[in-house]
Amino acid sequence: MGQTLTEKILDDHLVEGELEPGEEIGIEIDQVLTQDTTGTMVWLQFEALDLDEVQTELAAQYCDHQTYQFDFKNTDDHRFLRSAAGTYGAYFSRPGNGICHNVHKENFAAPGKTLLGSDSHTPTPGGLGQFAIGAGGLDISVAMGGGAYYVEMPEVVNVRLEGELPEWSTAKDVILEMLRRLTVKGGVGKVFEYTGPGVETLSVPERTTITNMGTELGATSSIFPTDGKTRDYLARQGRADEYVELSPDEDAEYADEIVVDLSEIEPLVAAPSMPDNVVPVREVAGESVDQVIVGSCTNGGYEDILPAAKMLEGREIDMKTEMVVAPGSKQASELLAREGWTAEMMAAGVNFSEATCGACIGIGHVPASDSVSLRTFNRNFEGRSGIEDDSVYLCSPEVAAASAIAGELVDPRDLAGELGELEPPGLELPDQYDGSKTDIIEPEESVDDGLVKGPNIGAAPIGEPLDADIEGSVLLKMTDNITTDHIIPATSDILMYRSNIEKLSEFTLSRVDDTFAQRALDSNGGVLVAGENYGQGSSREHAAMCPQFLGIEAVLAQSFARIHKANLFNFGILPLAIDDDTYERIEQGDDVEVVTDVAPAIAAGETEFTVRVNDDWEATAELDASERERRILEAGGKLRLTKEQYSEGGGGAAPADD
Amino acid sequence: MGQTLTEKILDDHLVEGELEPGEEIGIEIDQVLTQDTTGTMVWLQFEALDLDEVQTELAAQYCDHQTYQFDFKNTDDHRFLRSAAGTYGAYFSRPGNGICHNVHKENFAAPGKTLLGSDSHTPTPGGLGQFAIGAGGLDISVAMGGGAYYVEMPEVVNVRLEGELPEWSTAKDVILEMLRRLTVKGGVGKVFEYTGPGVETLSVPERTTITNMGTELGATSSIFPTDGKTRDYLARQGRADEYVELSPDEDAEYADEIVVDLSEIEPLVAAPSMPDNVVPVREVAGESVDQVIVGSCTNGGYEDILPAAKMLEGREIDMKTEMVVAPGSKQASELLAREGWTAEMMAAGVNFSEATCGACIGIGHVPASDSVSLRTFNRNFEGRSGIEDDSVYLCSPEVAAASAIAGELVDPRDLAGELGELEPPGLELPDQYDGSKTDIIEPEESVDDGLVKGPNIGAAPIGEPLDADIEGSVLLKMTDNITTDHIIPATSDILMYRSNIEKLSEFTLSRVDDTFAQRALDSNGGVLVAGENYGQGSSREHAAMCPQFLGIEAVLAQSFARIHKANLFNFGILPLAIDDDTYERIEQGDDVEVVTDVAPAIAAGETEFTVRVNDDWEATAELDASERERRILEAGGKLRLTKEQYSEGGGGAAPADD
Repeated sequence: MGQTLTEKILDDHLVEGELEPGEEIGIEIDQVLTQDTTGTMVWLQFEALDLDEVQTELAAQYCDHQTYQFDFKNTDDHRFLRSAAGTYGAYFSRPGNGICHNVHKENFAAPGKTLLGSDSHTPTPGGLGQFAIGAGGLDISVAMGGGAYYVEMPEVVNVRLEGELPEWSTAKDVILEMLRRLTVKGGVGKVFEYTGPGVETLSVPERTTITNMGTELGATSSIFPTDGKTRDYLARQGRADEYVELSPDEDAEYADEIVVDLSEIEPLVAAPSMPDNVVPVREVAGESVDQVIVGSCTNGGYEDILPAAKMLEGREIDMKTEMVVAPGSKQASELLAREGWTAEMMAAGVNFSEATCGACIGIGHVPASDSVSLRTFNRNFEGRSGIEDDSVYLCSPEVAAASAIAGELVDPRDLAGELGELEPPGLELPDQYDGSKTDIIEPEESVDDGLVKGPNIGAAPIGEPLDADIEGSVLLKMTDNITTDHIIPATSDILMYRSNIEKLSEFTLSRVDDTFAQRALDSNGGVLVAGENYGQGSSREHAAMCPQFLGIEAVLAQSFARIHKANLFNFGILPLAIDDDTYERIEQGDDVEVVTDVAPAIAAGETEFTVRVNDDWEATAELDASERERRILEAGGKLRLTKEQYSEGGGGAAPADD
Repeated sequence: MGQTLTEKILDDHLVEGELEPGEEIGIEIDQVLTQDTTGTMVWLQFEALDLDEVQTELAAQYCDHQTYQFDFKNTDDHRFLRSAAGTYGAYFSRPGNGICHNVHKENFAAPGKTLLGSDSHTPTPGGLGQFAIGAGGLDISVAMGGGAYYVEMPEVVNVRLEGELPEWSTAKDVILEMLRRLTVKGGVGKVFEYTGPGVETLSVPERTTITNMGTELGATSSIFPTDGKTRDYLARQGRADEYVELSPDEDAEYADEIVVDLSEIEPLVAAPSMPDNVVPVREVAGESVDQVIVGSCTNGGYEDILPAAKMLEGREIDMKTEMVVAPGSKQASELLAREGWTAEMMAAGVNFSEATCGACIGIGHVPASDSVSLRTFNRNFEGRSGIEDDSVYLCSPEVAAASAIAGELVDPRDLAGELGELEPPGLELPDQYDGSKTDIIEPEESVDDGLVKGPNIGAAPIGEPLDADIEGSVLLKMTDNITTDHIIPATSDILMYRSNIEKLSEFTLSRVDDTFAQRALDSNGGVLVAGENYGQGSSREHAAMCPQFLGIEAVLAQSFARIHKANLFNFGILPLAIDDDTYERIEQGDDVEVVTDVAPAIAAGETEFTVRVNDDWEATAELDASERERRILEAGGKLRLTKEQYSEGGGGAAPADD
């Protein structure tokens, strides 16, 4: 039987397990990437592992989230990251050089390689045939130490693309259509493999827009085969020699198939406040727009911004609308500036920003109260923009530019008709992506003398072995789809404590209940209850570290988002699945006791745990954990376990047997 | 007897008083400017005056300090300001369009006109013959209502420029030389009028660098005559018709004369942490530099950045040094982008920022701990960069660029020698400053339907009439040169409360003693004691409003900075001058009672007030206040007084007789 592309790459990298959906596999990691808000903890954990240098083929540290450096703690973090990259042998991308996914795609992403990144949008280079997964920071530290990465073998879904995109429809609309059909839970436990005749109609930048935002489907990863377009893109980036031809076997068997006819895609928008709340732009046309932002790892490339620039050339944005363009990388900024597009956009009224994640994570250009913001980003979770009652729409750069001109949401096809002059800008790649590499410091060019830690940079907390019993009150009962932004917000006033767990913990779940952190500390721990898809969103391991710091021993949820569940294991918190009835019946404030003798049950591979509530009624909760994950729980977390293993093994060069 | 240029312009605008140094004069204001952090209170106060529209020839509202909009309160402020400008008839410059002084210079500054601005660097357009003064926001509100502006007639000092600047020496070095000679107190009560054969060797942008930073001398204003260079600059801005020839009479009599031989100026730097701590760059050369920033209202023009861009072309900045360029206006950004310089700077490793005050006031790009930052700004007060123990040097763009290349402080003449290839970039004006005007909304283009106030926008507090007696404990004893940054810090976490006095007050003097605000509230008021030059720095009236809100009734200082003293009157706080002995003897915690019966003494024009300390010893404190200022004190502040006057007068069209 033939293999899917996913299976082929995983097979090449398999160190443990079988490629059976749902089975845990261990894979060798070729490349890792880290960014500034997750990277500090990755390197602190790497330091705790007592290793001399990075063992992967390539590691790259980016500074993209906190580039505005609003606080000295951000700048200190960047300096620490530079010193860590230099000390341990990673590339360092300076603040201002752009978003990790964009810069990685431009410089390092390679077909057929595995990439593990401490950011949930790591799957971006799936668009050029790399198998890339987002993971918690600790998984990155371990991978950098030469350890395998463990993940449940996903189901591989065939997304068959047919036809060709009409004018004004874009790759962004393709992934919005996927979200409309499948919802933010639709990709859990899955890899979306794009196939079919439509593939060759899409350039690499278009493909990476789709793979990037596959994360919003909850997918483990998304991937395209490679072809002439891939080779062409790499050649324009000066990396033609890294091209490898990759495709699924003709008789590959997929778990499912979805057909998307590109020719039927129309301009779409994700309405507030979930990326799957997708409707045609025409359905919400006329809504007044206060702010428009073009950028992010989804649509911040040169090829994304150029169409908007062409549309704005010689025009002016509406006077009541503010428009910001924040390129995804300095390569994009430099090309746009060199070709005169930056000046044109400025003349149209655009506030041109440095290359940063920025507004996408609520850092800068926070919308005004009771206002509408239209963004080319990938997420519009409530409050993520930096204001609680936000109203953020997600769309393509074309829809963004048209709406900025109109001052209201508009399908560019209709604006074209109204003004009688808007030409579809189409998509264009530069002959050569000849931006400078000044902002990338190579591993051998280390400029710091050892690790440089500012006063806010703590140490990686090393857990304690599992408690004999788990008992405590339900400190918080939450609904479905709680995101990691709810658990640990990423606004700039909070983000700067990512290297300081004690301080950061004060903000745990504050977006849900701002008394939670103090109550958790006061009650000396307890448990959390949640609905479906708990922990969706970013890969931030702090969403597990902080609850652990506050004494949370277990989370009882109807289901868990993949990366967050791994993070719960990694930090010694028991993720227990409960059924609908139990979820409905259990209340905040209830006393919960795991009656099953926890440590022996985990060791023995038990999957069912009896939970007694208020000494009154009982329910069964399920632990879906591999042997490896059970060992992690027993040890009190993965850092402690790995540290012991690496120390026994005399170093990290050998894949860790965890 | 002939007149100085200052006297000529003031004479033309005089509505009250005599042009005798030290005497209070009232002058008519032609233009006002406000920025976003002082502007919200200006407009709230204007609203409180119940007037229909701005009465000055021109009013312009800029958004420059909080352009990153890192909190919704910033964005709400900008929206409020846009709505206020539209409602009352002012120009509105959108966030991203640049710093008020730069944009005003480009678009509105006119020789011979008076300009009052709620920012201490308002004197910038003195470089093209405008008489411009920084003032507290309330003075702006009153001027916008048609009221005169009252100020002590300054001494006019002749700064005679001889010779011509050598290569690598710049206008920035001229004003640094002035600061080296005169200190930050050297200009108090003075206007510096530049004359002599050196004037014609300097372009308008160079002149405005000098007049801009005259503020750091404590000067009331600085001014240049107009000439062919002025006409030429205005013509390149498309405003040749606004040129007026202005010069002092040949037999003008000056209070003092300073001679600066331009040919002897060498590259200088203001070392941490005061703008007058000036030394030749060569004296501190070799100091490692972590961060370099080019921009600000002092050196953020096209002409300022272009030399740095030329120096960086084809080169790379040092790997351990981060460099940010933040243009002062979008006109500068657009020109630099259009001509390809932006791309060149990016290629060299520059992080190119939106046009903003930003880092100059501690908003963004805060230096790392224990690091050195080299900036082309005008102030390096301790902590102003956003980190307490900062180490900020001030210099020219040429020194900044050379040091970024070297990774350490270097005189560009020495770097030139070392590399054998650095050409002096010289100074160059564009043929036409043809940036777009898209970001300026004209008064008749109002886009909002009345005032739009977000939830953080309060009301202007209207004071209470003066207390019968002033008695209380010395809540804080401070040293010399306490700045308004000490009194009300301007970092972004605090700045966002500028429209919310109750909240903002919590931060009063927190940089000196973070228990102060609570102690003041607890003790139901008291007095402050300070050394020389209390309240130097910015024009922010919040530095008086917040102490007033906390119940402070008097400040006993050896001397006061001009704008702050006016602000103290405006908010009903008694500024009493004490002598050295009294300052030395009085201690924090002492009980102070103004024995003189305050209200009648103020009304009667008394200048000496007896102060009794700890019921033990007495001292005499002096009140140097005009009749007008006494009436303001009696009324409980200027807003209450003006409101009464305007309401009696049936509107604000007539100059207010206050």
